[in-house]
Amino acid sequence: MRTLAKDVASSGEQQVTIKGWIHKKRLLGGLNFLNIRDRSGLTQVLVEKGEEVEKLRGMQIGTVVEITGTVYPDERAPGGAELHDPQITVLVPVTDEPPIEIDKPLSHKSEHLETLLDNRAIGLRNLQETALFKTQSAVGAAIRDYFQKNEFTEMHTPKLLAEATEGGAEIFQLDYFGKTATLAQSPQFYKQMMVGVFERVYEIAPVYRAEPSATTRHMTEYTSVDAEMGFVEFEELLNFTGGLLKHVVDSTWETNEAAFKSWNVPKTLLPEKVEDIPRITIDEIHEMFLKATKEDHTGEDDLAPAEEKWICEWAKKNKQTDAVFVTGWSAKSKTFKFYHLADPTNPDLALRADLLYRGVEIATISMRENSYPKLIEQFKAKELDPTNPGFAPYLTAFQYGMPAHGGFGLGLERLVEKLFNLNNIKEATLFPRDINRLAP
Amino acid sequence: MRTLAKDVASSGEQQVTIKGWIHKKRLLGGLNFLNIRDRSGLTQVLVEKGEEVEKLRGMQIGTVVEITGTVYPDERAPGGAELHDPQITVLVPVTDEPPIEIDKPLSHKSEHLETLLDNRAIGLRNLQETALFKTQSAVGAAIRDYFQKNEFTEMHTPKLLAEATEGGAEIFQLDYFGKTATLAQSPQFYKQMMVGVFERVYEIAPVYRAEPSATTRHMTEYTSVDAEMGFVEFEELLNFTGGLLKHVVDSTWETNEAAFKSWNVPKTLLPEKVEDIPRITIDEIHEMFLKATKEDHTGEDDLAPAEEKWICEWAKKNKQTDAVFVTGWSAKSKTFKFYHLADPTNPDLALRADLLYRGVEIATISMRENSYPKLIEQFKAKELDPTNPGFAPYLTAFQYGMPAHGGFGLGLERLVEKLFNLNNIKEATLFPRDINRLAP
Repeated sequence: MRTLAKDVASSGEQQVTIKGWIHKKRLLGGLNFLNIRDRSGLTQVLVEKGEEVEKLRGMQIGTVVEITGTVYPDERAPGGAELHDPQITVLVPVTDEPPIEIDKPLSHKSEHLETLLDNRAIGLRNLQETALFKTQSAVGAAIRDYFQKNEFTEMHTPKLLAEATEGGAEIFQLDYFGKTATLAQSPQFYKQMMVGVFERVYEIAPVYRAEPSATTRHMTEYTSVDAEMGFVEFEELLNFTGGLLKHVVDSTWETNEAAFKSWNVPKTLLPEKVEDIPRITIDEIHEMFLKATKEDHTGEDDLAPAEEKWICEWAKKNKQTDAVFVTGWSAKSKTFKFYHLADPTNPDLALRADLLYRGVEIATISMRENSYPKLIEQFKAKELDPTNPGFAPYLTAFQYGMPAHGGFGLGLERLVEKLFNLNNIKEATLFPRDINRLAP
Repeated sequence: MRTLAKDVASSGEQQVTIKGWIHKKRLLGGLNFLNIRDRSGLTQVLVEKGEEVEKLRGMQIGTVVEITGTVYPDERAPGGAELHDPQITVLVPVTDEPPIEIDKPLSHKSEHLETLLDNRAIGLRNLQETALFKTQSAVGAAIRDYFQKNEFTEMHTPKLLAEATEGGAEIFQLDYFGKTATLAQSPQFYKQMMVGVFERVYEIAPVYRAEPSATTRHMTEYTSVDAEMGFVEFEELLNFTGGLLKHVVDSTWETNEAAFKSWNVPKTLLPEKVEDIPRITIDEIHEMFLKATKEDHTGEDDLAPAEEKWICEWAKKNKQTDAVFVTGWSAKSKTFKFYHLADPTNPDLALRADLLYRGVEIATISMRENSYPKLIEQFKAKELDPTNPGFAPYLTAFQYGMPAHGGFGLGLERLVEKLFNLNNIKEATLFPRDINRLAP
């Protein structure tokens, strides 16, 4: 029977058998300490006997072992107990020294990131890295939990598309049995169509952007959390999205607090009620930013990255929140997409908001035009041909009845990046992809 | 306040407001019945007043309405209540008749499938279709639930790869900023590498096969449930996989029984204990099949589709199980992959099994070679070059310590297809893809 590290102290057994990797070795004269890593954490083992010490000769970090030893309570040891008088079996010997250190606290210097990414499968064995990605797993579970409680249906939509119906330049194309296929930039059309079937749908799946640069904010492949709900109004949609962030923060802080602490991350600040997450218009932010910095973006139809950062700092200081909704998007600019809904009470504005969190946009939220004739008009206004067969399935859904609806797309890695207060999305991605990186 | 169909009877209100789609209209002289569809089901509405009947003139199936009416208990009505004396508001008029009928029981004739798929966004509004894909969503939730309870970490691995490291012909290639990228056929390498980090990992994500034919069993894109676990033995791995199937069957039968009944599907038969799911070798099946049918496949290293079907029928009749493990795979044939583990007690055989369910293989399960030097040998035996830089990250994980491990890949759509006793995987796929189909 194998005992996991987390259960050694509480096992009630005098003797336990653990299995795992040698994570750290310290030789202090006659006292040899091993830290053995398994999926639940570390177990410290004191090795004194000569024949056992001998078995470890030449065995490097990563060596897979089975150890039977006597449980010795020790508050200073990880897990609150140490194994004494061990009997060691080397299951898989490792004789080479690892290419990067994994048994030290991770000092996150940007100059090391490429090296870390090159050696990802080994570097992730660092416990801080492991904690981060276990938290990412918990974030996914919390998101799904929220959707399920709210009666959403999970869907799986194809990423291979006949054409990039939403348009744009950043599209990957591939040969599909002599035809051209493209990789989905988002499940936008599908999630809207599926409102007509399930009312509330979500998907957590990869999407693709042929972004021809390597930045700290973008990747060519990322995990998109897409949701769409019918019979909803704009304010309700914003509160639903804010509620998702709050649920993720609260539940991961409950289940993964140690992970955040190992990264020295303070808990995300959010108002008690999601309704109190500030709504600030683009124009207001331009004005505030101009006053504060003398940098003038007034009149622009989007925020500059510096403004996103600045307004989050402002909101944190003045409203005790790490999240802000940016509203007041123009319905007359190119930021207005053909599927957006103009505000019926003010047709110059779109019913759209961006959710900023710790300085970056993590979600784009909008109501969608649900009237078939108006949608056709909006296609034409954007110089898209509604008779293009590629649009037919989408438009057909509207022809046969689509209710008021809206939704959002949220980048999973970006959310995790900011939960951990990081400044590069790749640090929150297992195996990131950009123009320069297709491996590992 | 909107009341959902499922809550009308139990609302305790005299009057409720519902919102949804006109799903069915019946005009019986002065008695007009509407069925209104929302995400929870149908509400029957009796329309008698001339002015309300007038509002419905020309309104087709799919029209989006808001209706306030008096709750009138009626056991024959869906949900156990009917709305009387309604006040109807047409929110979104639909004036065209839908291209396919959605208010009739689905008669599943294969000759209709292409038409259904062409009109998918409308056809899915059929309540049997909706029930099937809501069950698919519940299957995903049950699978995740099982993984979480067993301390698996969910991972998101890239589908854009530098090369098809596993080899094979059925690979999609694309231009990646002047280089060539391929679409992942499976997360095989990643999930194994991540055993070295998390011990137990899973992923539910699309994978790609450039399958140049249109069959009832294959698609070019499908949702793969991939799992990998460290410190595991073969029998334990089989029981874990069988346990997953059992958990999915039991939990969806609890939450989605009505869906199965609407499709006339009997509950999946499984032994009380997953340990009792039969293990039958390929050679045994060849022999049994030969005796029963005079068709000779003895000596072949894989089962013919007819044999898979036959052995499942045999097991159902003789062992009261819809699931069978096929063991006894050769370690000397091309079915043995470079990452498979040969049985240490019988090196002619691989520690591999296929899980057959209702006539088809839904999962391939195997132990993996975890010794670095032996893995290098197996690469060479398969004429793969272990010094190819594309293999480096994978091999590095073994160089620095990988425990005994194994895992499986399971097709989500195929599992759902067979849960519903269907004979074409596309019926269990929202928007299927094959050589002929890239849309909708």
